[in-house]
Amino acid sequence: MAPVKAAKYVYSFGAESADGNGNMKELLGGKGANLAEMAKIGLPVPSGFTITTEVCTAFYKNNKKYPAGLKKEVAAALKKIEKEMGAKFGDPRNPLLLSCRSGARASMPGMMDTVLNIGLNEDTVQGLLSKTNNPRFVYDSYRRFIAMYGDVVMGIKAAQEKAEDPFELLISELKQKKGYVDDAEMTAEDLQQLAHDFKVLIKDRLQLEFPEDPMEQLWGAIGAVFESWMTPRAVAYRKINDLPSDWGTAVNVQAMVFGNMGDDSATGVAFSRDPATGDNYFYGEYLTNAQGEDVVAGIRTPSPINHVLPVAPGVKTLSDIMPEQYRELDKIRTLLENHYRDMQDLEFTIQQKKLWILQCRAGKRTAKAALKIAVDLVKEKKITPDEALLRLMPEQLNQLLLPTFDPKAEREVLAQGLPASPGAAVGQVVFAASEAEELAARGERVILVRLETSPEDIKGMHAAQGILTARGGMTSHAAVVGRGMGKTCVVGAADIYVDYAREEFTTKSGYTVKKGDWISLDGGTGCIMKGRLETIDARLTGDFATFMKWVQKAKNIGVRTNADTPRDAQVAREFGAEGIGLCRTEHMFFEEDRITSVREMILASDEDGRKAALNKLLPMQREDFYRIFKVMDGMPVTIRTLDPPLHEFLVKTEKEIEELAAKIGHRVESIKAKLAELHEANPMLGLRGCRLGIQYPEITAMQARAIFEAASRAIREKIKVIPEIMIPLIGHEREFREQKAVIDRVAREVMESEGVKIKYRVGTMIELPRAALTADRIAGAGAEFFSFGTNDLTQFTYGLSRDDAKFIPTYLSDGIWSRDPFVNLDENGVGQLVKIGIDNGRSVVPGLKVGICGEHGGDPRTIHFCCDSGMDYVSCSPFRVPIARLAAAQHAILSKKRES
Amino acid sequence: MAPVKAAKYVYSFGAESADGNGNMKELLGGKGANLAEMAKIGLPVPSGFTITTEVCTAFYKNNKKYPAGLKKEVAAALKKIEKEMGAKFGDPRNPLLLSCRSGARASMPGMMDTVLNIGLNEDTVQGLLSKTNNPRFVYDSYRRFIAMYGDVVMGIKAAQEKAEDPFELLISELKQKKGYVDDAEMTAEDLQQLAHDFKVLIKDRLQLEFPEDPMEQLWGAIGAVFESWMTPRAVAYRKINDLPSDWGTAVNVQAMVFGNMGDDSATGVAFSRDPATGDNYFYGEYLTNAQGEDVVAGIRTPSPINHVLPVAPGVKTLSDIMPEQYRELDKIRTLLENHYRDMQDLEFTIQQKKLWILQCRAGKRTAKAALKIAVDLVKEKKITPDEALLRLMPEQLNQLLLPTFDPKAEREVLAQGLPASPGAAVGQVVFAASEAEELAARGERVILVRLETSPEDIKGMHAAQGILTARGGMTSHAAVVGRGMGKTCVVGAADIYVDYAREEFTTKSGYTVKKGDWISLDGGTGCIMKGRLETIDARLTGDFATFMKWVQKAKNIGVRTNADTPRDAQVAREFGAEGIGLCRTEHMFFEEDRITSVREMILASDEDGRKAALNKLLPMQREDFYRIFKVMDGMPVTIRTLDPPLHEFLVKTEKEIEELAAKIGHRVESIKAKLAELHEANPMLGLRGCRLGIQYPEITAMQARAIFEAASRAIREKIKVIPEIMIPLIGHEREFREQKAVIDRVAREVMESEGVKIKYRVGTMIELPRAALTADRIAGAGAEFFSFGTNDLTQFTYGLSRDDAKFIPTYLSDGIWSRDPFVNLDENGVGQLVKIGIDNGRSVVPGLKVGICGEHGGDPRTIHFCCDSGMDYVSCSPFRVPIARLAAAQHAILSKKRES
Repeated sequence: MAPVKAAKYVYSFGAESADGNGNMKELLGGKGANLAEMAKIGLPVPSGFTITTEVCTAFYKNNKKYPAGLKKEVAAALKKIEKEMGAKFGDPRNPLLLSCRSGARASMPGMMDTVLNIGLNEDTVQGLLSKTNNPRFVYDSYRRFIAMYGDVVMGIKAAQEKAEDPFELLISELKQKKGYVDDAEMTAEDLQQLAHDFKVLIKDRLQLEFPEDPMEQLWGAIGAVFESWMTPRAVAYRKINDLPSDWGTAVNVQAMVFGNMGDDSATGVAFSRDPATGDNYFYGEYLTNAQGEDVVAGIRTPSPINHVLPVAPGVKTLSDIMPEQYRELDKIRTLLENHYRDMQDLEFTIQQKKLWILQCRAGKRTAKAALKIAVDLVKEKKITPDEALLRLMPEQLNQLLLPTFDPKAEREVLAQGLPASPGAAVGQVVFAASEAEELAARGERVILVRLETSPEDIKGMHAAQGILTARGGMTSHAAVVGRGMGKTCVVGAADIYVDYAREEFTTKSGYTVKKGDWISLDGGTGCIMKGRLETIDARLTGDFATFMKWVQKAKNIGVRTNADTPRDAQVAREFGAEGIGLCRTEHMFFEEDRITSVREMILASDEDGRKAALNKLLPMQREDFYRIFKVMDGMPVTIRTLDPPLHEFLVKTEKEIEELAAKIGHRVESIKAKLAELHEANPMLGLRGCRLGIQYPEITAMQARAIFEAASRAIREKIKVIPEIMIPLIGHEREFREQKAVIDRVAREVMESEGVKIKYRVGTMIELPRAALTADRIAGAGAEFFSFGTNDLTQFTYGLSRDDAKFIPTYLSDGIWSRDPFVNLDENGVGQLVKIGIDNGRSVVPGLKVGICGEHGGDPRTIHFCCDSGMDYVSCSPFRVPIARLAAAQHAILSKKRES
Repeated sequence: MAPVKAAKYVYSFGAESADGNGNMKELLGGKGANLAEMAKIGLPVPSGFTITTEVCTAFYKNNKKYPAGLKKEVAAALKKIEKEMGAKFGDPRNPLLLSCRSGARASMPGMMDTVLNIGLNEDTVQGLLSKTNNPRFVYDSYRRFIAMYGDVVMGIKAAQEKAEDPFELLISELKQKKGYVDDAEMTAEDLQQLAHDFKVLIKDRLQLEFPEDPMEQLWGAIGAVFESWMTPRAVAYRKINDLPSDWGTAVNVQAMVFGNMGDDSATGVAFSRDPATGDNYFYGEYLTNAQGEDVVAGIRTPSPINHVLPVAPGVKTLSDIMPEQYRELDKIRTLLENHYRDMQDLEFTIQQKKLWILQCRAGKRTAKAALKIAVDLVKEKKITPDEALLRLMPEQLNQLLLPTFDPKAEREVLAQGLPASPGAAVGQVVFAASEAEELAARGERVILVRLETSPEDIKGMHAAQGILTARGGMTSHAAVVGRGMGKTCVVGAADIYVDYAREEFTTKSGYTVKKGDWISLDGGTGCIMKGRLETIDARLTGDFATFMKWVQKAKNIGVRTNADTPRDAQVAREFGAEGIGLCRTEHMFFEEDRITSVREMILASDEDGRKAALNKLLPMQREDFYRIFKVMDGMPVTIRTLDPPLHEFLVKTEKEIEELAAKIGHRVESIKAKLAELHEANPMLGLRGCRLGIQYPEITAMQARAIFEAASRAIREKIKVIPEIMIPLIGHEREFREQKAVIDRVAREVMESEGVKIKYRVGTMIELPRAALTADRIAGAGAEFFSFGTNDLTQFTYGLSRDDAKFIPTYLSDGIWSRDPFVNLDENGVGQLVKIGIDNGRSVVPGLKVGICGEHGGDPRTIHFCCDSGMDYVSCSPFRVPIARLAAAQHAILSKKRES
């Protein structure tokens, strides 16, 4: 027999004491440790005991036999329960009923089995009847127990594959016979009959008697819980969640208590503070003569437990009708908050005037409440600021930063797309960017709906409250521009059919939305809703400011922003960004006054033609950079040179080509020829990034000139500029060397002609696997910083384009991927390249500055990885800056904790 | 002053002895060591000396000053030359003339400077006149010396940037004045005048007298050679070729000898064996009273040195007119072959009856000659078989394996494309695949010319001698299929304009080729030539067989082939392939009888529809595999499951869609909708590889069934089958696990129903960076072999598509890339991933079988890398199998050498 480490198999709890405590999750499982802790700190927990996880392990190692001595320990623990609860297991007059639940180290919701009301049989039912005077409740409990036991322990469902639940069939038959519509119509007699019929069914089907002996029932239930550890679904769940099989589950056996034993009984749920607002008062609801599920089910309307908030006339609070029990509960509230130092959610039951606490845990709360509670707890000196910072999930800050739909508002969802840019937008539908501009100019709120967007739509997108496209992925034009603008945006809504001609779109279910109809877009979920939903504006309260001050103090990595415009930069700076980590110059190219010059540049037949067009762009780019430098006074601004394939700037349709030809005086044929020349089967793998700058050094030179001339002007105006020029898509160190030479040459020229000294850095994005692998050579070629472009790095490492890979949802739902690598950086694969890149780079240039500017830079999980990898900063979109800052702070705090 | 290691700066050679020898390349440079070696073994080398590379290093370390003592050593060495040559440097009656040449460790062709005829001045010219009686030669030498010295040493060209050569200008003026067309028309007097004018020019321009003092001339030349080590072009050359700057160059000073000092003088070139055939006889040409360059220049026709080959009437051989010198030369031939144990190419000059050897080196030879010489030398016991194997470049075998154009045939090149598949093809142009089939059926030879090819063209491609396309890259349909068929193929010939309607194509220069016109395609160079060029068929002589037997014995890595058809497999097996490393099942899908079923499968609206279509494909695939197993009896056959994006199999044009709709009974609209659904912006990064099999497991199941049913039949027929099923584009171990489960299930089913036991392996391609990075997990998921798909791995690591990246030629010509990473595996980047993949895989499965199946598998340089990385085999196209085998053998031999 396999050795069992612990001599003790069974840990009792109850009567304000326990053998175990809250730290013993490995041995007692999460639930068992929690019950022990509650008992230990003096809460009136119904008595019970926990059979340890080691018994489970031994059970499986030893051919499903229990270790010697277990039975004896269980018997002793049961005696203790009987004594504390004043009832006896199997006693026909005063029966103790038990529950039996699983409880592993980690929560495995819905994966494992539970049996309630163990101990009921033809005799004990009588005792329960006399104790409750509620035959309907008693027989309902009894028939439920038989069905649950028949299923979980005796396996009646497993015995007949795939067919309908046989117990449910009997219920349906009965309801049909009696003409009932609802279960609630069943009488006590009906339920008694069902209990009988269930037993007959079990005997017929399994050739087994339903066990009448309570001890047999109990051991059957314990065995079933242990068995459920190895059901295929539990095994699969653990595999997906990387939980080891040898952890095992504990089994918790606990006395049942009932809130429905008459008018001196009650049940309820309470929060130690208001979970919606975070206000520090006791908040809860209860029902008299009811079971816990009645509170949840909503058949009866529960009443508030006290008068803190206004109470409707005629409604009695718990403090009114059971003042003694309420006072005890209120004491427990204080006890809990002092012990757990957090807002607690607790379930209570009063059984014939005796208060029992069934469960307590950190209460779920809104982001607003979470912030207020965390800050208040610090003020109350219950927790430190560092602890407070760990009390919010970084993502929760989203709720604090964006307008949101009123959670109480009724939603009629028409369709769903990809949540490309968060927020809540409400407006009238238009299908043309120009129309969006016109209506917005008149003060109307509009939602711009397009098949997909293009550079021409920029102004309309800006004017709209939100953008909805039928096509495109998370990095489509609409998505990228939307995020850049902080504009609510839902893309790739494949279930809507857009008809420009009729100016309407139709959903899969056949509902048609016409121009001028109101819709609401939820950028956080991708939901498209009918009508005008109410929104709530973001308010940055004093608490938020306090909280972010602590964040700033705690974190030890820089947080920058990806911003292409002075406006975005301003927003990000207000949110605490410490610089720009990525300024994409090409987005400036899309604006209407520039795109024609860009096109002239591309269509030029020689270098002189290109230079002429570039000269038109120069003053515009210079002005852009100047304004950004001004906003970012004193902070680094990382500017990326031209990146996207040239054809992205060009026109597509016959009509557009003709218009452009007329505008710039080219022949239609020559434009078409150029379009054909620029066509690529896989543009993502083509002429883009620094390859453009190598092919056309004059483009890089113009951009460098714009940057340095803007910097010169700013310096003359006493603005502190820290330009960092970033060359994209470097795959070979000689590419970097060539582009840096162009930039350095222009820098010298400008500094000489302007008579100004500019300190600047030239670095590179690491976004090709080869760049990471040869980062030592790239650093050796003079790269003064690295910024990991993890969007592209992920695409190339996986060999898939995020936009094209329509199979990603399938991969996630089938569990081939545990997480979307475009949301959370893939540490196993892409993360290795990141580490290789950093190590290689710093092996040549110790202390090389390294950051991340892919969208992962705003993902808290990825930020932890970035901190661990030794990066100097992360960069993310303006609205994610506070989130990133909090994630960085949490990493620092947790690291400090781990070290101490 | 920097210390100089060697006490001796100057090494003399000549008079059948030398201070140095052939192994002293580091100190004496390549040329200096070679001259020393020649003298040492007794060749009559004109006397001279070498100033060591250490002097160069000291020169640069010490602010361009020579080490003390150098002058003295040079003076002594010069004395030695004078004595041995019987002439005196600067002597007006009997002047010794010198050459001064650079000579680094590694050859740097054309990068560094040379000065000839040092010692000529107004006085010594007289001595030379009386010795040669050839004033034209003397003044020509004189004016050339002045120009060369004026340029190289005095820097007259460098002094006037970018302008034309001033000496050439003077020559042009003179020729214009005299009405000459050719330099040869200039008289001795003209040349004398030029010499004078050159000196005047130098004085005018540089305010410097041309040095008349021979010693000053000599030191000027020595200094210039040392200086030329650091010219920008030399520095750049070393950077590109990874040659260290601190190697330095040696300087070789040597007596000039002249073959044009009258009828007792001569000059010539000879090979110790016939360089064209390899036959073992003395082969060479000479001219009396001539300089070396006259032999090369082709103004006079040289005569054969002997009567081994038939001699035209009236022609005198060297053995006829100078029998004594010929006998000496013939002795030298034997001496050289015995010493160098290889065929030698030597330059000789007879100056007034005295034979001098100016240069000897391993002679350039044709592939045929190389093979014969190598095998003969083994027979003659001069070298071992291992040494013989090192005497051929693996690529040379190409010449032995393919029909080639007669090198003597006149070529009129019309245009050039990419050399997609080698060989020489001659035929009449047709523009339709059907026509190619028809004409070929009638026994005509045709070249199929298309804009690009598609699956429908397969039969026509097969029927044609060669394929020419105007579009597409090295991995386009035409290129891949062409290589697979071993068919001469030129693709992406952008300079031809194909007009299907007029059935003609026009070249950039305006030449039009009509249907029925003859053209010739060189698949090795991509040249498209007018007319019918003569071709020479490949013959595998007995020597070739002998040679390949040695190859087989020497190599210690497997060589497999990439073959999709029984025919290719047969060819490869005859060439020595030891298995199939990559059998692409999709190529089978393109054949006409199958493509419709494939399309039905893709267009099916549900799994049942797909299965019905797959059931039609099953017997065809089964037959394919059976026939391949039969050919490959006893050898492993690696079959890759479906890889390309589905839309590759679909139709494109409106007409094709209509035809397909009619054929398979679908609506045109539904086909169009499916096409739209399958459209991807970057298909290379989309739904392909195992992603297809995950989405549609029934495809994998059908292919597995075809493989195992074919294997069962083969086994029953006593054929030994070793199937290895390879899953493409794995990026996550769970993808592999799922696909392997499908294959294993089908294997069990087939083995059970057929009652046969089949041993098989399931493995994966490693072609995504992520697969290499997580190869440990993939091996842990049960992969039984890895095959590196280095085409895709290179594309993803570089983030570029070979077909789209039109900038690759620019990158190569600009030196951003030293080598094309799609030809030679990029060891610095992609190679790291290969090593990481192998190490990771074997860390979990020691001894895991690993190979390569990308096109790099046929590249000798890459094969060396594969051997070093510990791969078990390489796999390449059938016609590259012998090349790969030789490369593998050479690696083994060189490794053995390095170790011993």
